[in-house]
Amino acid sequence: MQKIYLSNIPRQEARQKFLARVELPRRREIIKTSASLGRVTAEAIFARLSMPGDHAAAMDGFAVLAERTFGASDQNPLRLALGEDCQPVDTGDPLPPGFDAVIKVEDVQPVSGGIEILAPATPWQHVRPVGEDVVAGELLLPAYHRLRPQDLGVLLAGGITELPVLAKPKAVIIPTGTELIPPEAERRRGSIPDFNSTVVAAYLQEWGAAATIYPIVPDDRARLEEAAARAAAEGDLVIILAGSSAGREDYTVHVIEALGEVFVHGVATRPGKPTILGQIAGKPAVGLPGYPVSAYLSLEWFVRPLICRALGQAEPARERLAATLGRRVVSELGVEEHVRMAVGYVDGRFVANPLERGAGVTMSLVRADGLLIIPPESLGYERGETVELELYRPAAELRGNLLAAGSHDLIIDLLATVLREQDTGLTLSSAHLGSMGGIAAIGNGQAHLAGVHLFDPESGDYNLPYIRKLLPGRELCLVNLAYRMQGWIVPPGNPDGVKGVADIASKKLSFVNRQKGAGTRLLFDYLLDQAGLDSSDIYGYEREEHTHLGVAASVAAGSARVGLGILPAARAFGLDFVPLCEERYDLLMSASFYRSAEGKAILEIITNPAFQKRVEALGGYSMRDAGKLFN
Amino acid sequence: MQKIYLSNIPRQEARQKFLARVELPRRREIIKTSASLGRVTAEAIFARLSMPGDHAAAMDGFAVLAERTFGASDQNPLRLALGEDCQPVDTGDPLPPGFDAVIKVEDVQPVSGGIEILAPATPWQHVRPVGEDVVAGELLLPAYHRLRPQDLGVLLAGGITELPVLAKPKAVIIPTGTELIPPEAERRRGSIPDFNSTVVAAYLQEWGAAATIYPIVPDDRARLEEAAARAAAEGDLVIILAGSSAGREDYTVHVIEALGEVFVHGVATRPGKPTILGQIAGKPAVGLPGYPVSAYLSLEWFVRPLICRALGQAEPARERLAATLGRRVVSELGVEEHVRMAVGYVDGRFVANPLERGAGVTMSLVRADGLLIIPPESLGYERGETVELELYRPAAELRGNLLAAGSHDLIIDLLATVLREQDTGLTLSSAHLGSMGGIAAIGNGQAHLAGVHLFDPESGDYNLPYIRKLLPGRELCLVNLAYRMQGWIVPPGNPDGVKGVADIASKKLSFVNRQKGAGTRLLFDYLLDQAGLDSSDIYGYEREEHTHLGVAASVAAGSARVGLGILPAARAFGLDFVPLCEERYDLLMSASFYRSAEGKAILEIITNPAFQKRVEALGGYSMRDAGKLFN
Repeated sequence: MQKIYLSNIPRQEARQKFLARVELPRRREIIKTSASLGRVTAEAIFARLSMPGDHAAAMDGFAVLAERTFGASDQNPLRLALGEDCQPVDTGDPLPPGFDAVIKVEDVQPVSGGIEILAPATPWQHVRPVGEDVVAGELLLPAYHRLRPQDLGVLLAGGITELPVLAKPKAVIIPTGTELIPPEAERRRGSIPDFNSTVVAAYLQEWGAAATIYPIVPDDRARLEEAAARAAAEGDLVIILAGSSAGREDYTVHVIEALGEVFVHGVATRPGKPTILGQIAGKPAVGLPGYPVSAYLSLEWFVRPLICRALGQAEPARERLAATLGRRVVSELGVEEHVRMAVGYVDGRFVANPLERGAGVTMSLVRADGLLIIPPESLGYERGETVELELYRPAAELRGNLLAAGSHDLIIDLLATVLREQDTGLTLSSAHLGSMGGIAAIGNGQAHLAGVHLFDPESGDYNLPYIRKLLPGRELCLVNLAYRMQGWIVPPGNPDGVKGVADIASKKLSFVNRQKGAGTRLLFDYLLDQAGLDSSDIYGYEREEHTHLGVAASVAAGSARVGLGILPAARAFGLDFVPLCEERYDLLMSASFYRSAEGKAILEIITNPAFQKRVEALGGYSMRDAGKLFN
Repeated sequence: MQKIYLSNIPRQEARQKFLARVELPRRREIIKTSASLGRVTAEAIFARLSMPGDHAAAMDGFAVLAERTFGASDQNPLRLALGEDCQPVDTGDPLPPGFDAVIKVEDVQPVSGGIEILAPATPWQHVRPVGEDVVAGELLLPAYHRLRPQDLGVLLAGGITELPVLAKPKAVIIPTGTELIPPEAERRRGSIPDFNSTVVAAYLQEWGAAATIYPIVPDDRARLEEAAARAAAEGDLVIILAGSSAGREDYTVHVIEALGEVFVHGVATRPGKPTILGQIAGKPAVGLPGYPVSAYLSLEWFVRPLICRALGQAEPARERLAATLGRRVVSELGVEEHVRMAVGYVDGRFVANPLERGAGVTMSLVRADGLLIIPPESLGYERGETVELELYRPAAELRGNLLAAGSHDLIIDLLATVLREQDTGLTLSSAHLGSMGGIAAIGNGQAHLAGVHLFDPESGDYNLPYIRKLLPGRELCLVNLAYRMQGWIVPPGNPDGVKGVADIASKKLSFVNRQKGAGTRLLFDYLLDQAGLDSSDIYGYEREEHTHLGVAASVAAGSARVGLGILPAARAFGLDFVPLCEERYDLLMSASFYRSAEGKAILEIITNPAFQKRVEALGGYSMRDAGKLFN
């Protein structure tokens, strides 16, 4: 098989190349109006009937023939005989034949055998004319109109009980990869659940297409070719998931080339580079990257426009927002980077912080409030620069989004969910920056809250010595969240008998560390120092995880024998935990945030006994000082 | 039955009264993750498994144990035996046991039985660690989170194949009214299709509730009471459609009072006044007005918040936009008016024109681009004032929305639909103001286009004399759209033998006129004048319709014997048409619009032979001069 090199075509150019060559068919189908919500009209729809179909009373009162009421006045009251000269009607009743006006019930005097009036009626007064709402022959809806609830109303009012709509384009998704298993199957070592197909199908469904997911095809060129050919015969659009890069078993490009044509292989973006755009049997065929974030962004760039075009819809544009960058974001020249961002409203301005950038981190798309697109000619942006974001959530909603930075703790996650449960209107996005990063974030106005747990060996105190040194003279509040137990996370049964750092060094145990600036790492360094050891004595000292759970996961996978972290992380993986010391975990915030309604909402939650019970149930926490101010 | 008077409670007060007393239950149900798109989490969801579940190669290359590569250099190449010291891996493959790093395929030299390297590997280089995407125990989603495609991804990645979501609140809709028939049934005289139930159910569905529509209940108190009691037993929410006012057969308030309690009857809004808010068996019970626009607005005000609250969602806020009022809008003191508006971007500013204000005109909600809410203490706004609108369509989209004013013609409707069919990105909203109103709208910068067909008896010319007089010295373009045949619209067979105005006067035929300022009305006045007649000689001269179709509908319904209008309108109702004269129908626009891209798009369409063929097929049109400029 020939060696393949990926090209580096700018995204817009790739898109134009693709859209110029392929399109999805505009097929139509007739469906019932009552089942047409969200579908798109295939042609202009004109009313068949009028609504109302008869002249109708617009008031409760009496139907009359106007010319027979002429001359009535205060001086000359006129009597109208019931059934002959007038007839009682309620609002909405059809006007009885021979009548052309309605007199309101308030304007008549009942008399024996009829009514008396003191003023004439003008023809057609208080009459709702035929076709007031919809008149036969009228344009109800233009072609390519997405049907909303009120549209169903005028269609039915106009006698349109079924109508031609654009058929949903049919996409076929082919998941490929020998390591893949169905997303609901039992996991085995080395198996990867195919969740991408479900996500891609859900996006397609949201955009108005119908998706069929084929069974997983292993990395076998012949079988992939067979599946792709069948997909092109059965569907309007073929999406092959993964195998789109240039590795040994990346057959997608060869298959599309063999069955049709490849227009583009390789787009100058990150994530999303190994995308393939082509056609099979004249139908669009797309090879999506295997990494989830790459796949979903690429799908939006190249497949969504096809679907929108087929359904006569403009591509939905995201709301844009100017925000201050809370952290530096670097980018490579020649590559368009799409960075997922957490966005909040801090101290009267929108602040955006980058989330994890790995193409494999689906959680970054889940957590993202917006997207920062860095053009190929830029090397990135400095902290404090104003950048324009594409928003995933409305800006109005983001005003109520609290940004948590600093050390990661499960209580912060619990706080996020309780804010939702209590309908506070507030949400919480968190970035795991470590305690030192958290202090800097508060100092720079990049976050509302920061979790910090920094032990100062000199004073024996927590956090305050660091804050005083790093942010002198600032009006800040340091509020205790909890005390938590730190300890050694080890395999079940503690097979290496870990009791302290000395064991890790002497037994050359594979260690997994935390990132620089993390309170837990500083604690480990302190322990090393106390034991007269050095980082070079520890195998794996350079290996970094960003969360307690990440450390525990490495121990559980057997790639590390020991890590330092908190009890709930060990529990999540069924690992053993050797308690070491209790530490203080505080929330740092500006004094103005502490006094704000949002700050009060946070304080209320953490001092609530029900919340405290939930935290303590996680294990290793004490909430005895929660809410206490340290100064 | 006691006499009922409607109260006049401000909308916000009514809402508070209602929401303080009732709520929908927050029930949960377990569903499969693959079927959960759009549903709302019932609790915080934590990952059960890590993704990836094993350390995996992040590059194509060779897995090695890092410590066995130490010492390799240019001077000291190291050989690694295949199978023993190294093993080939592709991106995504699990790291084989006993290895802790990957060397990229580009960095190795194949040699017999293995590979040669010139640099050592650091532990864990090019390894995607366990849990990089999702780590077991991690918070995936908070409670009350509406599930998007990417959320399904992290759920499946985290081993969550089913999850607890909030059950959809169950609404029961009871359509009432003896005159109602199912929306798909054959119409009879006086019958009204119940399209409101379908629309209400569609709104509820969009907001996340499930709706059941009961069979239509006639105006019979006992039967309505039975249906309402059953609905309260079966559903979480009872919605009674119509019968909510204070007329003879408006039983809704009595029924809710008998079975439960009425909190509010009558809200100080227009439309929407006769709304009933109450409870039956502790469950929210709402009586909606019978007029469609009233019903749908009231539903949004009072029912949507219940559903959003039950699903833990904030009520979606509409985009707001400041726009210049193109026409005066008056309002009554003490009433909060909700006026549907057409919005476009004319001459560098957003302009909003009111649409029909009748509560029965569903089309006004279909055509509306936004809503103007006039507070109770306001008497309305003058033309030219800046008002704030709630938008139904994004402002960005409204920049491409053309406003047509002036005389109504079916070609304008056809133009609107062709703009969509041709994917121009442009849309068109039209207000029927008559030719004179159209000229004024262009003069005031309230519209992009105005249809005009004004005959000037003195010069024998069309349109120009009026424009010169009304808008002297302005840079305008008058572009011919078509010639069209005006004539008498009469019942089939022309039973009254109408040949001219003299017949209408002498035979005292019931006439239906057009509104003041309409070109067709001016033509009729001219004909009267020519025949030496006066408006008082015509029975029905004061009766106004705003469109040709409206005139035809009145003749078809038998409430008028004759009207003046165009052939397609007569055809739409199977009426006869007595041709009278051909008239010129032009489009008036500013010179700058004529030269703009949008103006050119319009010109292109009306000079397109395929479009002209479609117009001429309507009957009575000639496109021989379409696109020609008259100056």
